[in-house]
Amino acid sequence: MQIDVTQRKIGLNFNSDGLAEIRLWAPDADRVLVHIEKLGEPLEMFRRNLGYWYLQTDQIKPLDEYAFELVASEKKEGHPSCTKGQVLPDPASLLQNNGVSGRSNAFDLRNYEWTDQYWTGPELKDYIIYELHTGTFTPGGDFQSIPDKLDYLVGLGITAIEIMPVAQFPGGRNWGYDGVYPFAVQNSYGGPHELQNLVNACHEKGLAVILDVVYNHFGPEGNYISEFGPYFTNKYQTPWGSAINFDDAGCDAVRTFFIENALMWFRDFHIDALRLDAVHAIKDFSPKHILAEIKTYTDKLSEFTGKPYKLIAELDLNDNRYINPISQGGYGMDAQWIDEFHHALRVSAGQEQNGYYSDFNGIENLAKSYNDAYVYDGQYSAHRQRKFGFPATNNPGEQFVVFSQNHDQVGNRMLGERSSQLVSFEMLKVLAGAVFCAPFLPMIFMGEEWAESNPFQFFISHSDEALIEAVRKGRKAEFAAFHNEEETPDPQSEETFNRSKLDWAKILDGEHKLMLDYYRKLIELRKQNPALYTLERANSHAEALPEKNTLILKRHAQSKQIVAVLNFSNEQQCIAVDDFTGDWLLLIDSAAPEFIEQNHNTISADGNIIISPESLLIFSKINE
Amino acid sequence: MQIDVTQRKIGLNFNSDGLAEIRLWAPDADRVLVHIEKLGEPLEMFRRNLGYWYLQTDQIKPLDEYAFELVASEKKEGHPSCTKGQVLPDPASLLQNNGVSGRSNAFDLRNYEWTDQYWTGPELKDYIIYELHTGTFTPGGDFQSIPDKLDYLVGLGITAIEIMPVAQFPGGRNWGYDGVYPFAVQNSYGGPHELQNLVNACHEKGLAVILDVVYNHFGPEGNYISEFGPYFTNKYQTPWGSAINFDDAGCDAVRTFFIENALMWFRDFHIDALRLDAVHAIKDFSPKHILAEIKTYTDKLSEFTGKPYKLIAELDLNDNRYINPISQGGYGMDAQWIDEFHHALRVSAGQEQNGYYSDFNGIENLAKSYNDAYVYDGQYSAHRQRKFGFPATNNPGEQFVVFSQNHDQVGNRMLGERSSQLVSFEMLKVLAGAVFCAPFLPMIFMGEEWAESNPFQFFISHSDEALIEAVRKGRKAEFAAFHNEEETPDPQSEETFNRSKLDWAKILDGEHKLMLDYYRKLIELRKQNPALYTLERANSHAEALPEKNTLILKRHAQSKQIVAVLNFSNEQQCIAVDDFTGDWLLLIDSAAPEFIEQNHNTISADGNIIISPESLLIFSKINE
Repeated sequence: MQIDVTQRKIGLNFNSDGLAEIRLWAPDADRVLVHIEKLGEPLEMFRRNLGYWYLQTDQIKPLDEYAFELVASEKKEGHPSCTKGQVLPDPASLLQNNGVSGRSNAFDLRNYEWTDQYWTGPELKDYIIYELHTGTFTPGGDFQSIPDKLDYLVGLGITAIEIMPVAQFPGGRNWGYDGVYPFAVQNSYGGPHELQNLVNACHEKGLAVILDVVYNHFGPEGNYISEFGPYFTNKYQTPWGSAINFDDAGCDAVRTFFIENALMWFRDFHIDALRLDAVHAIKDFSPKHILAEIKTYTDKLSEFTGKPYKLIAELDLNDNRYINPISQGGYGMDAQWIDEFHHALRVSAGQEQNGYYSDFNGIENLAKSYNDAYVYDGQYSAHRQRKFGFPATNNPGEQFVVFSQNHDQVGNRMLGERSSQLVSFEMLKVLAGAVFCAPFLPMIFMGEEWAESNPFQFFISHSDEALIEAVRKGRKAEFAAFHNEEETPDPQSEETFNRSKLDWAKILDGEHKLMLDYYRKLIELRKQNPALYTLERANSHAEALPEKNTLILKRHAQSKQIVAVLNFSNEQQCIAVDDFTGDWLLLIDSAAPEFIEQNHNTISADGNIIISPESLLIFSKINE
Repeated sequence: MQIDVTQRKIGLNFNSDGLAEIRLWAPDADRVLVHIEKLGEPLEMFRRNLGYWYLQTDQIKPLDEYAFELVASEKKEGHPSCTKGQVLPDPASLLQNNGVSGRSNAFDLRNYEWTDQYWTGPELKDYIIYELHTGTFTPGGDFQSIPDKLDYLVGLGITAIEIMPVAQFPGGRNWGYDGVYPFAVQNSYGGPHELQNLVNACHEKGLAVILDVVYNHFGPEGNYISEFGPYFTNKYQTPWGSAINFDDAGCDAVRTFFIENALMWFRDFHIDALRLDAVHAIKDFSPKHILAEIKTYTDKLSEFTGKPYKLIAELDLNDNRYINPISQGGYGMDAQWIDEFHHALRVSAGQEQNGYYSDFNGIENLAKSYNDAYVYDGQYSAHRQRKFGFPATNNPGEQFVVFSQNHDQVGNRMLGERSSQLVSFEMLKVLAGAVFCAPFLPMIFMGEEWAESNPFQFFISHSDEALIEAVRKGRKAEFAAFHNEEETPDPQSEETFNRSKLDWAKILDGEHKLMLDYYRKLIELRKQNPALYTLERANSHAEALPEKNTLILKRHAQSKQIVAVLNFSNEQQCIAVDDFTGDWLLLIDSAAPEFIEQNHNTISADGNIIISPESLLIFSKINE
């Protein structure tokens, strides 16, 4: 099937005459029937090339329910992709009002009146990212509740929100990584129409929208897609079982499925950037990697709409081939997450060196990440038991997203404690400073900016009892070595979900309000000072002082110079800083009341800085 | 462990003081003992970093027998890599005089007096390759018997022999792809010393030596290597089971093992080029692919020795990333085999379109391969059920090896029939012409040049009865659909091996002699005529005439022009050739007695060529 970047050509779509055009890939079927709720008899689809089926009909209207029946001849009976007589939802369904096992609902993607015609969004280098989970970000837990918070986010200085996955998952409570309909927007969040509304509202406020999408696995419940064709291959194993088939027999249709998915979010939902989950679990030995192919089609769509679209990969391979341009043999991702910055930062702040943290020594690795993005770029990793990574020498700072916590790092702890429950209030400010002073794209996790004390725990709402029990056992087993298993929150319990919601009342009070002001100040400083704003890696240099557990970060641009000192130790330190003489302005002292001296203190520097325990100082050179 | 390109640092080596230095990777062992035949007590090895063990001793001399005992503590008992008390041969053994399950023999690689100091060998573009199997090439079936044939090969016009794998395999009869000691030269072929002798003799005669090496699997018998460490990973499946571990935990030592192997053949055996078997079955998602790493170390060795070394991959992916320079994101292989040229050629010559041949339409695909190397460079392949390949637009002709038959294409037929038993004598000459007129590196399979009528069948000499029976059954099952299984030759039988030997007596007689003269003439022509000699793909163009099953190939260089016409049909054809006017010399008429008109016939051309059934004409333009 040819991909047409101007319109979705998979699943059920309404054409300009209002007729439904239905396309399905079912290569092993001998007949395909469409069951439409309100009709007595199913409609017969017509065979097209390469295992595709097609039907154009006026018998179905938006929101009508429909499902497919695959019919296989006798000799194919028992073939996994053709269970005779079973009626299945559309793998490319746009709406599942009856949940993951219900029939699909027709939906007209074009039926939305956008008011963002002139929107092009911030450039990638200006992204200040706020990761949020729709279900727990607001008391309402849906898209409709989010617009009320946009002014708040804009006031904080955020330029892009990143929405955790919204592809239809079982029940109403899930992080989103158990999605089984990549094209269907979770009905309990408000479905596709409300997501369009939210994106439109964000654009009106000047906020870009990043959407987290999962192209490396399907969830365990409501996953009927393998009935339709070879969507999986057993050539490769991933942490979630057989890999999605991106390079084995039948892979063209699977590749098309995901390319169409990426194009839909950009074209039909006006999403500005996709965050591609765990791309290291996408196994593809094709000459053109599926990520490069998604990039090529995304660029074609950009040409058509005139809007820039970005692809940001979650990547655990320290392999800059993923972010290098296609013309240089790369896969063309615009940016990637750097978990290693987080790991080095957390160990600097006292995190025990267990599990994956065992590979990180703290302050020296943190300096390495400031300077080279990847901590491991060829060194031996004891945790991985191999040499790991490759130098990202020529990749600019805007290709790397950094954070001091995210949904994974918080929620994958047994109790889902945020940083606020793990380190001191003073250290929280150092962590935030570390992120916003980095020559990379900063990201925060919802509520972090006011030191939210509620946890973000792992929650699900499956309906299969055996699966629920398996997930419960899995969580308990995961933490058995460190914790009493009775303490493990029950992932299926609604209470676990409810206790993970943000508590917005806090932002008015005491330390929470103080932290929020501090974040605002930090972001404002980053935006205004060219030395912090530039993402030229050559203009940035970090130096570790391991014996003092202190890091010195120097940055400069346009004749502005910044020196930031981050003291992760619990003692006051006297730090000798090269070239730190003459007159400097103290921009931020995280240990001072209100963090910032009134009217900025000018100091006459002698090369030494006295810094309080667990605190951050940022100085700006006063030019003569 | 650091790789030192100047010397082997794996297994047992003798240093310049004549002391044995023993190195072993056994990461899960608590103790490692070396059992030396003539000593009563085993010697204790010393633990080094990263799972390596080391011992220097004067207690072992060349040819002495030795073996390792791995000792694991109680709690590791049962760990697959540490079977307590078992005494195992050296995975990096250089000689297995007692076969794959016997103790290893120490060998001093440096103890050879080379006389090829000034040898640098032909350039890759001048390679005319002769693939041979040591066991069946001569009546003697060993390295010592080969030098007598070198004058013959030189007279034929060959510039490089390619030796099928010689790594120690079970018994004395095997194609070589069941090898289990990648560093040990098959003892029944004469072992390492005789291979050194053979290479030296080849270089004295001006012949380069290509060695076939297998880095994608180990054979099924005598394979103890996984006792030592994680040499395999179950992350990937290959046709031969779990993949070799090139990117999972512990992979560094496995990568080092194969890099050391490649370096050894070049440095210590003076091999000119390696042919890397089935590199598509090497699964490696590392930032630097193992092939690229082998290339980097090979180049380092080249710098050290001043000799050029080549890497030629057998590659079934039509992905020119493998042959592109490392600086362009490639893996840096110098060249690759093009099986697709063979498939298209054979279908043009009447091969039934079954199995993998089903993807090939004959003459049009053949023209595509002449023009683009890859037949599939993005088109849908019905056999693979996916779009396949990528254009190799900028890769020069010297990066592609072509042939009309090879050990695989012959031997993987049930009866191992060579082309001589499958097509007419006249068609054989067309096939040869197709290969030698190609703007790629030509390769022939031993005996092809005299239309050897003996088969080349699949043979083994395992000692494990269950394995032998499994291989027998596998062969029968493979051909069950087409043949009576009683006809399947018994792979274990010595007769199968013996009937696969070349019969050199034939070259003196009748059609065999005639064919040999024809091959000599073709090769001579290719070497002498710049238009055939050049591998500039831009200077070559093929055109298919499907209705006549005829191909026109035009090549030019240095003001020389060649027109070759290949008639694969069994009818005389009248072919209109563009720009074929004026005076031309008929260089070869494969249908003429002795193939070539005496003193070359000058013809005054009118644009049309009359060509006999199943024949080849080559014309050269006479410049005014």
